[in-house]
Amino acid sequence: MNTQAFPVRGSRHQPEASRSTILAAALVEFAAHGLAGARMEAIAAAAGVNKALLYYYFRSKDELYGSVLEEFFQRLLTRVNRALDSEASAGERLLLYARAHFDSVSESLYYARLFQGEMMSAGREGSPRLSHIVEEYIRPISLRVFEVLQQGIAAGKFRPIDPAQFAPTMAATIVWYFVVSPVVRRLRPGDPYSPQAIQQRRAAVLDFIAAALFVDRNAGLTLASEIAARPAADPADQETVPGRGRQE
Amino acid sequence: MNTQAFPVRGSRHQPEASRSTILAAALVEFAAHGLAGARMEAIAAAAGVNKALLYYYFRSKDELYGSVLEEFFQRLLTRVNRALDSEASAGERLLLYARAHFDSVSESLYYARLFQGEMMSAGREGSPRLSHIVEEYIRPISLRVFEVLQQGIAAGKFRPIDPAQFAPTMAATIVWYFVVSPVVRRLRPGDPYSPQAIQQRRAAVLDFIAAALFVDRNAGLTLASEIAARPAADPADQETVPGRGRQE
Repeated sequence: MNTQAFPVRGSRHQPEASRSTILAAALVEFAAHGLAGARMEAIAAAAGVNKALLYYYFRSKDELYGSVLEEFFQRLLTRVNRALDSEASAGERLLLYARAHFDSVSESLYYARLFQGEMMSAGREGSPRLSHIVEEYIRPISLRVFEVLQQGIAAGKFRPIDPAQFAPTMAATIVWYFVVSPVVRRLRPGDPYSPQAIQQRRAAVLDFIAAALFVDRNAGLTLASEIAARPAADPADQETVPGRGRQE
Repeated sequence: MNTQAFPVRGSRHQPEASRSTILAAALVEFAAHGLAGARMEAIAAAAGVNKALLYYYFRSKDELYGSVLEEFFQRLLTRVNRALDSEASAGERLLLYARAHFDSVSESLYYARLFQGEMMSAGREGSPRLSHIVEEYIRPISLRVFEVLQQGIAAGKFRPIDPAQFAPTMAATIVWYFVVSPVVRRLRPGDPYSPQAIQQRRAAVLDFIAAALFVDRNAGLTLASEIAARPAADPADQETVPGRGRQE
């Protein structure tokens, strides 16, 4: 293939629409078959592009897989930082973070599945890709969450919990419902991932976190229910979520 | 192979030691390689038995895999029921359940990995094995947890949370640290699964649940810290945990 026939990668000539279509198709294929089982042909066909273009954007299946994961964490980091950067109390920023994290995961169940697969294949010794995600995204997010927890504790608003324990527990309450979706689908009648069910889950998660954290629990619960009911923080960035609306 | 040469399966003549040694070896092999990648030869070698005996106890790799999962959930159900059957307040029974669940998972990290693999391979449509586990173990445990939550609410001791939301959130806080072990190992200095670290985690989990649930939060926190510090409820059943002490 003559890559000279294509515009330079990442330049303003790059048709971002194709790239994002490919990422959306790849997300679905990887979530269904894992890295080893996924087929580049199937991704090209689903994205409606030829294989040459696929390999032009992403040199290998491995690189495409990494890009799909990266896409999710990059967007998560941006949204979480926006929540934590706001000019609000520690309590409000913490709950805005929880909401941003919840919304990022709930918008496409495929990602929870993909990240789980990554952890399964990484194992104890880990993979360079998992290390990269931890260092570039998970650690920076954790540190910022630690910081807002410490600010709330110092201000006497949060109980004196250990941020290194509380932050992962929050993440657990936020992500769990999506990580165990095959079990949730069996346990619950109806569609547990309908917009209404997601909204109820979001309210329950914010309620749980606020109830456990705020010294003035009632004030925390009122704030949590108000933040859970707000319209999405930035509907604009939801339009570009690959795989959205085609929940597994 | 002439199975008549062996004692009847499950009879009092069955050497339980071999069976449990095989299950322990299988757990390690399945956690490392998944159902597809695991080799019966490797399991037989690790257990120190010949392949004929392996196939005598477990007719196929698939059956052995199912037995390993079943072993874990059977023990979990027994311990959880014991906690919930005790003659104590709803608050104490609920926290004893949380502790029993935590201890069951923390005793061998392999199980979290195995169950995760099961969910990955089951996918949305699910597998008969996952359905079996949900119906035989997860649903009964959930219903009993719902029941104690409702009792505590009726007695005015628990906040009026929705048990169908609160129960999975509790499970999330209990299990998460073990499910995401490849990430936890990268984020934390030292050994995050040392006995001391596990003890701290257990205390933090019970603290979180009690803080979120009890109407009288201080009373709940005192009870949680007392229950977290108790010696293991039944050290006797820990001796038979396959894979114990050889944490991945």
